[in-house]
Amino acid sequence: MSTLKETTKTERSALDVFFTPKSVAVIGASRNPTKLGYAVVDNLVKSGYARDHPVYPINPKADRILDLKAYPSVLEVQGKIDLAVIVIPYKYVPDAMRQCGEKGIPAVVVITAGFREAGHEGLEREREIVRIAKEYGIRVIGPNCLGVIDTYTPLNASFAAGTPPRGPMNFMSQSGALGTAVLDMALAGRLGFSKFVSLGNKADVSEIDLLEAWADDPNANVLMAYIEGVPDGQKFIEVARRVSKKKPIVAVKSGVTKAGSRAVSSHTGSLAGSEQAYRAAFKQAGVLRAETMETLFDYSLALAYQPLPPGDRIAIITNAGGPGILATDAIERSGLKIARFENETLKALESYLPDAASAANPVDVLGDAIADRYQFALETVSKDPNVDGILVILTPQAMTDIVGTAEAVADLSDRLEKPVLACFMGEAEVRKGIDILTKRGVPNYPFPERAVEAFRAMSDYRNARARPLPSFEHFDVDQGAVRKVFEKVRGEGRVTIGDFEAREILQAYGLRTPESRLAKDPDEAVRIAGEIGYPVVLKIASPDILHKTDVGGVKVGLASPSDVRDAFDLMVYRAQRYVPGSRIWGCVVQEMTPKGLEVLVGMNRDPQFGPLVTFALGGIYVEVLKDATFRVAPFSREEAQEMLEEIRARALLDGVRGSPPMDKEAIVDALLRIGQLVQDFPEIAELDINPLMVLEKGQGAIAIDMRLVLSSHA
Amino acid sequence: MSTLKETTKTERSALDVFFTPKSVAVIGASRNPTKLGYAVVDNLVKSGYARDHPVYPINPKADRILDLKAYPSVLEVQGKIDLAVIVIPYKYVPDAMRQCGEKGIPAVVVITAGFREAGHEGLEREREIVRIAKEYGIRVIGPNCLGVIDTYTPLNASFAAGTPPRGPMNFMSQSGALGTAVLDMALAGRLGFSKFVSLGNKADVSEIDLLEAWADDPNANVLMAYIEGVPDGQKFIEVARRVSKKKPIVAVKSGVTKAGSRAVSSHTGSLAGSEQAYRAAFKQAGVLRAETMETLFDYSLALAYQPLPPGDRIAIITNAGGPGILATDAIERSGLKIARFENETLKALESYLPDAASAANPVDVLGDAIADRYQFALETVSKDPNVDGILVILTPQAMTDIVGTAEAVADLSDRLEKPVLACFMGEAEVRKGIDILTKRGVPNYPFPERAVEAFRAMSDYRNARARPLPSFEHFDVDQGAVRKVFEKVRGEGRVTIGDFEAREILQAYGLRTPESRLAKDPDEAVRIAGEIGYPVVLKIASPDILHKTDVGGVKVGLASPSDVRDAFDLMVYRAQRYVPGSRIWGCVVQEMTPKGLEVLVGMNRDPQFGPLVTFALGGIYVEVLKDATFRVAPFSREEAQEMLEEIRARALLDGVRGSPPMDKEAIVDALLRIGQLVQDFPEIAELDINPLMVLEKGQGAIAIDMRLVLSSHA
Repeated sequence: MSTLKETTKTERSALDVFFTPKSVAVIGASRNPTKLGYAVVDNLVKSGYARDHPVYPINPKADRILDLKAYPSVLEVQGKIDLAVIVIPYKYVPDAMRQCGEKGIPAVVVITAGFREAGHEGLEREREIVRIAKEYGIRVIGPNCLGVIDTYTPLNASFAAGTPPRGPMNFMSQSGALGTAVLDMALAGRLGFSKFVSLGNKADVSEIDLLEAWADDPNANVLMAYIEGVPDGQKFIEVARRVSKKKPIVAVKSGVTKAGSRAVSSHTGSLAGSEQAYRAAFKQAGVLRAETMETLFDYSLALAYQPLPPGDRIAIITNAGGPGILATDAIERSGLKIARFENETLKALESYLPDAASAANPVDVLGDAIADRYQFALETVSKDPNVDGILVILTPQAMTDIVGTAEAVADLSDRLEKPVLACFMGEAEVRKGIDILTKRGVPNYPFPERAVEAFRAMSDYRNARARPLPSFEHFDVDQGAVRKVFEKVRGEGRVTIGDFEAREILQAYGLRTPESRLAKDPDEAVRIAGEIGYPVVLKIASPDILHKTDVGGVKVGLASPSDVRDAFDLMVYRAQRYVPGSRIWGCVVQEMTPKGLEVLVGMNRDPQFGPLVTFALGGIYVEVLKDATFRVAPFSREEAQEMLEEIRARALLDGVRGSPPMDKEAIVDALLRIGQLVQDFPEIAELDINPLMVLEKGQGAIAIDMRLVLSSHA
Repeated sequence: MSTLKETTKTERSALDVFFTPKSVAVIGASRNPTKLGYAVVDNLVKSGYARDHPVYPINPKADRILDLKAYPSVLEVQGKIDLAVIVIPYKYVPDAMRQCGEKGIPAVVVITAGFREAGHEGLEREREIVRIAKEYGIRVIGPNCLGVIDTYTPLNASFAAGTPPRGPMNFMSQSGALGTAVLDMALAGRLGFSKFVSLGNKADVSEIDLLEAWADDPNANVLMAYIEGVPDGQKFIEVARRVSKKKPIVAVKSGVTKAGSRAVSSHTGSLAGSEQAYRAAFKQAGVLRAETMETLFDYSLALAYQPLPPGDRIAIITNAGGPGILATDAIERSGLKIARFENETLKALESYLPDAASAANPVDVLGDAIADRYQFALETVSKDPNVDGILVILTPQAMTDIVGTAEAVADLSDRLEKPVLACFMGEAEVRKGIDILTKRGVPNYPFPERAVEAFRAMSDYRNARARPLPSFEHFDVDQGAVRKVFEKVRGEGRVTIGDFEAREILQAYGLRTPESRLAKDPDEAVRIAGEIGYPVVLKIASPDILHKTDVGGVKVGLASPSDVRDAFDLMVYRAQRYVPGSRIWGCVVQEMTPKGLEVLVGMNRDPQFGPLVTFALGGIYVEVLKDATFRVAPFSREEAQEMLEEIRARALLDGVRGSPPMDKEAIVDALLRIGQLVQDFPEIAELDINPLMVLEKGQGAIAIDMRLVLSSHA
């Protein structure tokens, strides 16, 4: 994926011209209403853009199009052109691009399809466009896209079926078709947008550029994205991390399962697919992940229209018990809390509501409530310092005042600095209430559970935003020692590293390893064992045997010289038998480490995000329960600490059933040092420290064994 | 909760009179349009019921109501009355009920509120109604409900805002308000119902009665329920298990989290709340659990309108890549499969579709597709024997023929014996297509993920229905021995049982236990150890010490008489010190059992469903990972086997990392025997076998330790 140049501060404003151009040319404008070239001009007119700005239809065969003077080429236009929209067949696009360049047009939207998405020749055509753009300094959106809309300019430079209503949400979509569906929902009055961009093939402008450009957009409260893949994972994290401090970013990532299922060899690899990388990256970047398009909108509406809740305590006001229970269930399940009211709140509610009503949360104003009870309950509850957000549920019963209640909810929401979400349930009668809520900025959800999930998303964003930007530690390490090992290994035509070579690497990066030395024969093994002190561990040493235990290549607790001698001979015999032709260097004699908790620290390179570091408990936990967690390096100490809290079996780290608390900081330290190692040496394709033996709190951790694989392209 | 009598075959048809009465009286009919008594008569008229059937408004102060002759009392009506609807203030309800009885009215709907839901006095009033009903043999729906609707009769005996369109779904709701919301959705044309019942307080007719009554309803393909609680859990399972073989039952159970969080003392208890009981019960009964009201409708629409898929292989036809990817992700995540087409299918698709289209699943007919490509792809794909269901996705692009495609989808669905679900995305333009699909019985979902979940629900139901009704094994056991232990324990004023008493119980029910005997002093312990054979285990024996390990009351691997002697003295000393005043019987000397896999088999009594049996792996797995599964006893061998497959760490049972496969059948046997024990003795409040030591396949399992608690009310 080629981007024209590094996005810089100056260029960020350069993207503004796509949304607030002073003039627009449509290359391929048409008088035929069935053509896209007509639809684009029509949208420029109907959106109101053409009223205040010059629009130049470019068509060599027409004088006027939709009452606008047409030109044979952009070069014939007298005035300056800020934005060109290209809707001509692909073979004419390069020439048109060049003319744009000659004319000094800074921004081009290429709607035309037939590029990268159409196979090899298409890709060549796309590269040509990029070359031309680079030559003339043009920024390009597309090709193969729907176009660009800004409802505040107003500008509709797309062939969409209409211009959506205004609203404080920006939406970018890699899929144009999904864009059409979203716009169709907006056109029915369900949604409003500030900016809408169909990114198409992303030959130049990508999600990263738009996030950067939209970070300070005064018309948007939330940035929404449908993402199939990002061009540069590390840059995406870096940019989104900053931007998400200013505005919530909500994204759907599609195509997660296929990639996730690719088989890779090591334990870490078998867990770490793209899905894990995206999950980790979004988390590190503060991006809210929506699992479906529906939740994308559910979350974004709440974030766009309502203030963030200061805490997680939700009050429910309802005219029916059933939905109140459903909401309560959902709140408890989501990890939010049912607000506990002050006594004054309860008393006030009791004094106003009928006896049969419930003043405790959920507040049940009863089925015969008209607007006044809702209004009173809303006012009262909103003043309670223990309430961080309010969910208003309405069912259309015989007496229910749907419109009056909707107005009361919206009135309160206008004044309140806490979020109010609504769940007016129904459609025929209830629609008129929902329309009022929607118009007045109170998001309505058809069922309580979805409103609760929106609250949870707001809460997640509040927490993510409150976290400081990460700072990355740098340890004093011996890069040279590692480089020497790699050179030696490469020199021997190998890519896999284990045992004492691995130990040198670990030591160079400050990880504690057990004392251990290579013995070439039984006599040497006995001598070393004597020096280290009994009991010892013996391990077969061979560059060709990766999974030593599988061939009986590890013996622990050897307590005497004869034990060592026997084990040495047996292992060498077995290794030769099970892996015929393997090079056997002898056996490694190793100190018996104190018993601790076995954990795994690993790394795999994700094609989009780079070094993906794993943490898991060893053995069954990682192999059977897949209880592992991931971060893209670099990550901060706080992020490493979070990893430890994310595994299901985390209680084992704190000590359970009489076992002592383990040295969590030593694990964090190992994760950070490995994070640095894999960044310092991009040639490390994968590695596993398994086990890292974690001792009791304050006692550290010992890297017992590591395998490391270098990428075959040195 | 009082039900009038046992529901029997004859009575089942007795409920029919609620839905197809030959005449209806409305007690409390009113001429005032703001009164419920008016709304009910109005609905009887507007629904068309009054056209063909006598409707008798009962009102002592009116001659005619809504053009119908009114009567001062049901006793004044000449003809027979099948159904009475009562909408008078609660204090007059008993008299009205008695008059219904005198008149011989078999069925009454009590809409009036102010009963059980209104506190103690209300409960008394409700009991009076039940007594009167019982005296006269009247079946009662309500009180405190919305009423009853049958769109086929047609009958609307409710105060709902209107009569919903016809459709093959029956809906029952404990919450009337939720009913109004659901009807309001139906009135907007989104849903259709056959029967709709608001159950209210369920003084008589409950979900169980309605399930039974609706099992053979020719107008319903799916039975839907919003449930807050069922009156008799065991009966619910028994009835739903049979009914779900005939029609899918889809239910939302609310109020799950509160009850689930109540704290109970034992390990099992801390996991087994009502939520687990409902989850197990629904599964055993073949009831599809919908987590939200939205999924209740999503699932039910698919089940009501489309045939069941013969398998799990789904074909996707789409005019856009993005939503196709989202659907693919959802299918993989849900456990369904992406259908792999035959070569002929691929060739046929390739020959018709443009080059840029994708013939492989998901079939992308491209953004410029009009109806013909959809039609061809539908026809072609539907004939492929590897396709079990079809998902049609449409986004509203420039050329898209929304209406034509909707018609083509519906045409195919009419002819096809596989399910077709649609995902026409959008609202403004797309609505006209959705309306056609809805009218013609192809459920449409706004986003692909929801359609996929509906497919999964259909697949779940197909699997549940295919399972034979369970048969329950009966083991030959020694009930008398158990009764004797219980009597002895009760006689001593105790309720907790452990150690050798527990061993007698386990043996009486055919579970293997380690050889073990009580020793009162060190000498006796040494003698017993000699007879059992070294090494042995020693455990403190005291009715006051439940968690022996916590006080150092268990020592394993004692290899000599002096070891035994030392351990005995130490334990007794410690027990007295840590639990002052505890009664100490001595120590139990026990054989060292072979090392196996430690699992837990337990039981807790759920207030609604009775004996809830747990299976979990022991230690960390149950305590830290909460990796447990549940069944309501009785359960079949197949159901016990399923339990073993439901835990996350199930691979450990089959042997991993070189460990051998374990004796799963021995666990199943233990589960079944414990299931029988807790049914035979309802006075067992809870029990835990922890650990049950499972040996290698074919070697059995040994119940090492059990604690059992009798209910305090003997």
